[in-house]
Amino acid sequence: MTYQAAIALGVDLRLLANRPDDGAALVASDVAIGAPDSPALETFVAANDVTTFDHELVPAARLAALEAAGHCLRPNAATFALVQNKRRQRAELGAAGFPVPPYRFIAAAADISEFAEMHGWPVVVKAGRGGYDGRGVWVVADATAARDLVAGWETAGQVNALEPLVEAWVPIEREVAVLVARRPGGEAVAYPTVETVQRDGICHELMAPAPIAPELAREAERMALAIAERVDVVGLLAVELFVAGGRLVLNELAARPHNSGHYTIEGCVTSQFEQHLRAVLDWPLGETNLVAPAVATVNVLGGRDGSDPRERLPGALAVPGAHVHLYGKAARPGRKLGHVTVVGADAADVRARARRAAAILSGAEEETS
Amino acid sequence: MTYQAAIALGVDLRLLANRPDDGAALVASDVAIGAPDSPALETFVAANDVTTFDHELVPAARLAALEAAGHCLRPNAATFALVQNKRRQRAELGAAGFPVPPYRFIAAAADISEFAEMHGWPVVVKAGRGGYDGRGVWVVADATAARDLVAGWETAGQVNALEPLVEAWVPIEREVAVLVARRPGGEAVAYPTVETVQRDGICHELMAPAPIAPELAREAERMALAIAERVDVVGLLAVELFVAGGRLVLNELAARPHNSGHYTIEGCVTSQFEQHLRAVLDWPLGETNLVAPAVATVNVLGGRDGSDPRERLPGALAVPGAHVHLYGKAARPGRKLGHVTVVGADAADVRARARRAAAILSGAEEETS
Repeated sequence: MTYQAAIALGVDLRLLANRPDDGAALVASDVAIGAPDSPALETFVAANDVTTFDHELVPAARLAALEAAGHCLRPNAATFALVQNKRRQRAELGAAGFPVPPYRFIAAAADISEFAEMHGWPVVVKAGRGGYDGRGVWVVADATAARDLVAGWETAGQVNALEPLVEAWVPIEREVAVLVARRPGGEAVAYPTVETVQRDGICHELMAPAPIAPELAREAERMALAIAERVDVVGLLAVELFVAGGRLVLNELAARPHNSGHYTIEGCVTSQFEQHLRAVLDWPLGETNLVAPAVATVNVLGGRDGSDPRERLPGALAVPGAHVHLYGKAARPGRKLGHVTVVGADAADVRARARRAAAILSGAEEETS
Repeated sequence: MTYQAAIALGVDLRLLANRPDDGAALVASDVAIGAPDSPALETFVAANDVTTFDHELVPAARLAALEAAGHCLRPNAATFALVQNKRRQRAELGAAGFPVPPYRFIAAAADISEFAEMHGWPVVVKAGRGGYDGRGVWVVADATAARDLVAGWETAGQVNALEPLVEAWVPIEREVAVLVARRPGGEAVAYPTVETVQRDGICHELMAPAPIAPELAREAERMALAIAERVDVVGLLAVELFVAGGRLVLNELAARPHNSGHYTIEGCVTSQFEQHLRAVLDWPLGETNLVAPAVATVNVLGGRDGSDPRERLPGALAVPGAHVHLYGKAARPGRKLGHVTVVGADAADVRARARRAAAILSGAEEETS
């Protein structure tokens, strides 16, 4: 999707992809193949004016070395190191006064139980590194479960690599997200606060604007802008928040175009993908307002039979106003293969249409046309 | 732009391009190089499920042979033959009752003068074949000018190849256009009637909706749908019309995504490029309504100094709401290099913003930011 935005702006976008059959590699014209932790990274970066990222699986130390060698990385290596590490995120943002949940770094099951004595069961245990889409997050019910979890890590020799932490369980009323774009000089804009509906740790649905009090939405946007400045991001920063007890609690950060911003392609004046390019190229940022009163985006997940959603595309396109985006990924059960956005006047209406088209693509609903 | 739409729908779009540095060839991942009148055409078509076109410079006889060999062309060879030939367009659509201007096929200067005796000077002389963007159209003031024009063709040995015709000069109040998308089975939708503002035969600006009486706009849309059925188009048909004396007069047809439809990317629920793919792949057509009360698109033409508009991109992006599309073409004075669209509530406002961003990109206006 960033590539589509690059075409319109005449940006020469080169891609480093793991494999020639990665979704983006199938459609881009200038593709280098190599893992982001292989020597291909250095060769790739050296040929670019500016390098940016669409995932966090690049070793921060390698990025720091590239930056020291004079290459332009946006976001920079320091921002990358922070967003890759949930321990550092909690520590630095908590110390800066942002509302993180109570947390503690852990090394043993006893650390979890001690923490739970103060904050109550269940608790949430997280891998400090490498989590994604619900992986690396465990809701732990009691001391026995804590022992089993840590014993599993020890067997696999993972405890140090995981850099785990424990957090108080937050009684979540809603999950919301704010996307910020920021230029190298600090100019930044926030998109409207949206609601994300998660299932099994994966974002299923998004509604814009979030159905929360306007004052809370503005507070989330101010907080996201402040965090963007604190972590010195260049490009996009997705700030995921919980609403609990009517207040905001910081969940996670991602410094890249994000699933919670896919709705912006049709839903906002400037898509997150164009905005990311504008920000990392230090061009004026675009307007972030919604183009209609309601926008819904529903993710297309691979169905149980592993079939290609393209087989069901005509049925989805028959849903009025359905904007279908498929990612060119091989279909696997539960994998995010695309999304559908509908823009309109009424939240319930756009959500119903987006759900229907996404369900057809996922193979979860019979086509009716 | 069709390629960008293909990415979202997961359509495997292969491209036949004249040269590796053609705009589309620079961004597409699967490109064959060859002229549309070379043997590369047959090889290319033979490997496709469906073949469509973004220009009219493909020999209709070759297409007819490919169709006879069982290949799927959309639009088909018969539609192609008609839209390539202004003589046939006038004769067939005039006979079918559509409002074409008075015309006559010509072979000599005397034919022009005889026609002018009936319809008055000036007259409009057109090449029946090969015209594009104002080329192949001459406004002829008197008998002397007619003799000079035809003498020039005779010197170049062109008269037969041109298949020229003469038409009565139409006192144009406005030029409008309607885009139609049509599936193989005949299902068709029209986009709203838009106004196109031409200068030197090139479309400079577009306003949607056209500032004309709603009844006249609906009449234009009905006419365009009827023409699409008459020429049996599959895919898009752009119908360009004059408004003269408060009535519609048919100007030209193009059976492809068209400059008069670029505004649909941000301005309508379904862009013309996605709609073209839906139509030629026989998928359900998308909604064609405007997403806002006013849409303006202004073309970016190459400036006198031949400089690349990308040099001035930041200035254009500073214009609020400016959607910039650059085509990756080498800059030449007067060449269409891109366009800018602005969507909003007020026609004068969106036009002013689109003009300003386009002027900056064309190098015609100093940047003010």
